[in-house]
Amino acid sequence: MAGTNSSLAKAKNTPLAPVIILVGPQFGENIGMCARAMLNCAVTELRIVNPRDGWPNPAAVASASGATDVLDRAKIYTTTKDAVADLEFVLATTARTRDLVKKIYSTDAATKEISHRNATGKQKCGILFGPERSGLENDDVVLANAILNIPLNPGFSSLNLAQAVLLVCFSWLSEQNPFRPEGITVDPVETSPATKEEIELLLAHIEDELVKGDFFRSPAQKPTILRNIRNFFFRAAPTQQDVRTLRGIVSCLTGKRSWK
Amino acid sequence: MAGTNSSLAKAKNTPLAPVIILVGPQFGENIGMCARAMLNCAVTELRIVNPRDGWPNPAAVASASGATDVLDRAKIYTTTKDAVADLEFVLATTARTRDLVKKIYSTDAATKEISHRNATGKQKCGILFGPERSGLENDDVVLANAILNIPLNPGFSSLNLAQAVLLVCFSWLSEQNPFRPEGITVDPVETSPATKEEIELLLAHIEDELVKGDFFRSPAQKPTILRNIRNFFFRAAPTQQDVRTLRGIVSCLTGKRSWK
Repeated sequence: MAGTNSSLAKAKNTPLAPVIILVGPQFGENIGMCARAMLNCAVTELRIVNPRDGWPNPAAVASASGATDVLDRAKIYTTTKDAVADLEFVLATTARTRDLVKKIYSTDAATKEISHRNATGKQKCGILFGPERSGLENDDVVLANAILNIPLNPGFSSLNLAQAVLLVCFSWLSEQNPFRPEGITVDPVETSPATKEEIELLLAHIEDELVKGDFFRSPAQKPTILRNIRNFFFRAAPTQQDVRTLRGIVSCLTGKRSWK
Repeated sequence: MAGTNSSLAKAKNTPLAPVIILVGPQFGENIGMCARAMLNCAVTELRIVNPRDGWPNPAAVASASGATDVLDRAKIYTTTKDAVADLEFVLATTARTRDLVKKIYSTDAATKEISHRNATGKQKCGILFGPERSGLENDDVVLANAILNIPLNPGFSSLNLAQAVLLVCFSWLSEQNPFRPEGITVDPVETSPATKEEIELLLAHIEDELVKGDFFRSPAQKPTILRNIRNFFFRAAPTQQDVRTLRGIVSCLTGKRSWK
């Protein structure tokens, strides 16, 4: 999807974003796509435990689509235990049922928990993601405080690694999001919404021409028809430019009529 | 990420999911990844306008990771206008500012609007996604009722096509989700949480052994220490198996002590 403002294309780390920890990722391409998904969501701290193809990895850079800051600053570990050592709250992302008693958080519940721990205790939190094929081992899951389960179609829940990272990071961003439009907004454009007066002048113009054109066959009809026309134009919320265009159309059409 | 229950791996179309419309997609691989992301979120109706490499496309099948039902049922169109003809509400996904006056919905606001229209008017809704490199043309955007803007890091907002489709579909699923865990749940496991009585028996066992071992140097200390121990074990919420294990540990340790 197009749309990046390249003058702003640098890492903007929102304070206390969770650390993303990839355990044993197999493909550099996936690591790069994870970095891209992270930066899309202003999450920038990446840790990698035993990347299969070593590090640095040119395939990761190629697929990061410019999120190279995230890759350059990634830290590499040989054990998951070391990768989580300084963290105060860790979630293990997995779709599988485990013979382990742990709380399970949905994506939204997880990001709420992380935000709460950030806000109240300045806790540094991390999220573990397992290798592409097999997911996390139980030995990794036990290092986490709880499980994160992304609620998907139970009949087809297998996600690509970068997509799992994206959904979790996007959930976190949505929880924090300083960039989030508040519900519905209207695109700022050069032309402003028409004032009520401008719409009234348009309506008067239309009415005037309709009268001249003998549009209202019976006087009784007139108020109802005018009310419907008024209702349409107010509901349509035209811009000033729209009103100018509509008045031009009316003028043009009536000009034509006078030529008949 | 592992975790699909393959016995359930078929399309489960939640009623009135939005139609996903890819306009001019360039790479079959991306179309397949879109199909996978859709099925992850129980969204199954795909329409494609002028796929660059024709249709069907083997590269799409290869990257769909089993979401072939979605591809097999995809409908192909030569114009966006035809692709949206039967729809009652259409959103155009774009990150760019347009010289068009349209409402802009964030992802969540969009899925709420679609759900509302589904619930109250049985309206069929669709979401347009443009080509990978350039995004939607204005001629396509004008066919939509409103714009959908995925709120991301404004400094790095360029998403892969399938990732844009995933975020939108996941937002829709999360709005509807019959599979969504309600906040925090606890993993069902073979062993059940211990009853309060079982915990009390463990505590009594521990207290008994502590007394035998002359743990409480002063009688005044004892209630406070016991309260702290009790508090720890109740807070820890052990399972029945945990309690059995803990009692075994106590027995083992005290057995050792008797050998001293």
